[in-house]
Amino acid sequence: MKSHAVRIGSERRDLPIVNVGEVSVALLNLLGDTLLTEAAAEALAARLPDGVETLVTPEVKSVPLAHAISLRTGLPYLVARKTEKPYMVGARSKSVISITTGEPQLLVIDGNDVHRIEGRAVAIVDDVVSTGGTLRGLAQLLAELGGRVVATLVVFTEGEPRDDVISLGHLPLYPKEEGV
Amino acid sequence: MKSHAVRIGSERRDLPIVNVGEVSVALLNLLGDTLLTEAAAEALAARLPDGVETLVTPEVKSVPLAHAISLRTGLPYLVARKTEKPYMVGARSKSVISITTGEPQLLVIDGNDVHRIEGRAVAIVDDVVSTGGTLRGLAQLLAELGGRVVATLVVFTEGEPRDDVISLGHLPLYPKEEGV
Repeated sequence: MKSHAVRIGSERRDLPIVNVGEVSVALLNLLGDTLLTEAAAEALAARLPDGVETLVTPEVKSVPLAHAISLRTGLPYLVARKTEKPYMVGARSKSVISITTGEPQLLVIDGNDVHRIEGRAVAIVDDVVSTGGTLRGLAQLLAELGGRVVATLVVFTEGEPRDDVISLGHLPLYPKEEGV
Repeated sequence: MKSHAVRIGSERRDLPIVNVGEVSVALLNLLGDTLLTEAAAEALAARLPDGVETLVTPEVKSVPLAHAISLRTGLPYLVARKTEKPYMVGARSKSVISITTGEPQLLVIDGNDVHRIEGRAVAIVDDVVSTGGTLRGLAQLLAELGGRVVATLVVFTEGEPRDDVISLGHLPLYPKEEGV
């Protein structure tokens, strides 16, 4: 199986190249990779701009990353859920198109958490940004809730290089692999 | 709003009482509560039986808890996902009935992770066990994959007290509240 070598801090991984839709990508999966998550959190926490008051991450793969950055910085983190939950009060949501599936996907913030966004400097945390559709939608939702998105922190950018986010590296896109 | 006071280590929380289906429950939400997650991980790691080789947690609310226990113990953790992902190879799954929604819910383990279960002593990690339907289904799936489930660790039991899991406390069920 083809792979793509990455390094974060002292952690090295050979990411498998897998088909996702019409292209192949180097797959980063922080879920279950405790030490890579910790290394990424350490590096991203060091690059967090001054003045950030709240971290926000989309469900689910970057949740442990957000937790680990929160622990290091003392900043609270919120999870934008994929569905509205029975316990939420006055939930606010936005529909975005998932690049992975092409299907609409919801981003939902519990109304009980809006006080952590309104009037606050917010940083978005995610594992990989590719086309940026999810993160644009999340930034719009946070702006509608009165937040100022002052930074977006990701482990890797993917596809087109971009300079509008803080990242620890870049993953190329590959032509679709047959039979991987 | 009515609440239920809990304490884990030095962390105290007043959990809101919310309606879920036909009853009201004290709502524990570890997502975004960094310090409570850390306190629970510290307490549960101390009670983890000797010999456990792999931690498994159902997506999504207990993912940061599993991460934090993994970090303390050096044991790997796996996440049983709710859907099969495009990158999975030879995924194995089981359908369970969610007590919260009454709807069938999938638990999916990536085939690439089976080597961490087959022939291994496994501990299940979750936030709250109520009827236990999800955890029974997960235990069955892990057994089908050749794992020995030697312990289940949860922050709280809920409803009927039970002695088949390691927990840090118990949450009562309440009659359905009107207007909360």
